[in-house]
Amino acid sequence: MQRKQIAIVGTGLIGGSLALQLNEKGLAANIIGVDANKLHAEKALEMGLVDEVMELEDAIEKSEVIILAVPVDAVLKLLPGILDKVSDQVVIDLGSTKSLVIDLVKEHPKRGRYVSAHPMWGTEFSGPEAAVKGAFEQKAVILCNTSLSDNDALEWAQMMFEKIGMHQLLMNAEAHDLHAAYVSHISHITSFALANTVLEKEREEDAIFELASAGFESTVRLAKSNAAMWVPIFMQNRENVLDVLNEHISQLKKFKSCLEKENYEYMFELIGQANKIEKVLNPGQKIGLDSTGKLKI
Amino acid sequence: MQRKQIAIVGTGLIGGSLALQLNEKGLAANIIGVDANKLHAEKALEMGLVDEVMELEDAIEKSEVIILAVPVDAVLKLLPGILDKVSDQVVIDLGSTKSLVIDLVKEHPKRGRYVSAHPMWGTEFSGPEAAVKGAFEQKAVILCNTSLSDNDALEWAQMMFEKIGMHQLLMNAEAHDLHAAYVSHISHITSFALANTVLEKEREEDAIFELASAGFESTVRLAKSNAAMWVPIFMQNRENVLDVLNEHISQLKKFKSCLEKENYEYMFELIGQANKIEKVLNPGQKIGLDSTGKLKI
Repeated sequence: MQRKQIAIVGTGLIGGSLALQLNEKGLAANIIGVDANKLHAEKALEMGLVDEVMELEDAIEKSEVIILAVPVDAVLKLLPGILDKVSDQVVIDLGSTKSLVIDLVKEHPKRGRYVSAHPMWGTEFSGPEAAVKGAFEQKAVILCNTSLSDNDALEWAQMMFEKIGMHQLLMNAEAHDLHAAYVSHISHITSFALANTVLEKEREEDAIFELASAGFESTVRLAKSNAAMWVPIFMQNRENVLDVLNEHISQLKKFKSCLEKENYEYMFELIGQANKIEKVLNPGQKIGLDSTGKLKI
Repeated sequence: MQRKQIAIVGTGLIGGSLALQLNEKGLAANIIGVDANKLHAEKALEMGLVDEVMELEDAIEKSEVIILAVPVDAVLKLLPGILDKVSDQVVIDLGSTKSLVIDLVKEHPKRGRYVSAHPMWGTEFSGPEAAVKGAFEQKAVILCNTSLSDNDALEWAQMMFEKIGMHQLLMNAEAHDLHAAYVSHISHITSFALANTVLEKEREEDAIFELASAGFESTVRLAKSNAAMWVPIFMQNRENVLDVLNEHISQLKKFKSCLEKENYEYMFELIGQANKIEKVLNPGQKIGLDSTGKLKI
């Protein structure tokens, strides 16, 4: 395997964590950081996440692989222009929504150079200082509409995700966006709303957080997430997110109705159903490996 | 400090974890396990969580301290009968709701022997095998209506909570139940409802959990919690839980309305508000110690 010249556009949580992994796994000869936020770029350089920093146009020219790790609104803005300038570089985006971006470049003459991916990993923090060593390991990555990518571009991207320890799943963009709404996007909305519920009450009740327990922390952890990353995701996945949000509100209303009617038998039943989530919360046992121990891709 | 003969009624997650701490901190001369579930009692004995197992009546007679670590419906059933039988034993209950139980025994001639406490620690697991070493450390415990407890009983309970590493807060039962609804009970309802939202969808979409990410796991973790523990809590704290659930649904509807109206500016604002939860999610910096380093009690 030959080490590549790699440009990472967006040197925050995801780009920074990926840079650490690319170095650790010997995939990069050199990492160029690109960031509209100059402070982030400088910090990433200072932390050794990237080897040098340059403007996007120069980085495209000097790289063999260009990886977009920016909010999904920035992906839509940047990707067509990047494809305009590439010759045979591989371009990979890591955004959390896929339909709009895939649709946007579907007629682009360089469409084949582009691989559309969504690694299912993140934290509630942002910026280069949020980068985590060993991120992505044992997690799933979704590759979308892979038949539209050139073979060599797809192969390199798949090799990269395998080396950094990810289970690969292929899916079309529409299915991805639907599923992501259910297992990622809605969790953020419930967390934001729960935080606001409690913060609203705190105005009247000073002592309320003195009692905050680990369970509470776990459910509101995601409420620390960055609006600049999440609002564009909700915009781009609006219809799916609305569907799941409606379903979630109606599930909450079932609990409300149990309490109002004091129908605790039905509440037992609802909680019994919810307990079944246990069987799916051990992804290591479920994802990625077929019966022969090979990756299911 | 003299080690005590201690009976733990309920040898599951909370009782088992407390037994470990009582032994570790040298508080117990002997721990007697009492459990209506014979399998739990046997398991607790086999695991060395308790030194012996007996019926409640015998355990009351042989103990200096009796600790109730059972679901809150069982607390209501057991506490009056226990107080009927005690002479000068200390009786502590660790349940998650406080108003009803305190009201139930308010005229009892032995009321003074009873200390009403709620340690803010737990996990989504249950039974003796869920016991955790070092549980309760650095967490808050709420002591309710302490003026109704005899001085010596309260002193021993406070000494115990201090030794096992808990920050103590005094509160009346009504305030406790209100706050607990906001920072603990609602988290469980949102988690149960979120699990049901996604499980409902899974019927149509096989692959949905292949994508489950750490964020999703964090928000639905509590959905594994036991109905036998939680339904009685929701019953006993019905009005507060209904209030916070209504507020939570209305907060979710704000996000829904942003999406429907494509009002992303307001969504930015809502998320910005929710981000303020960060300042209260570091309880070690906030709870428990006054400026001289003493416990705030």
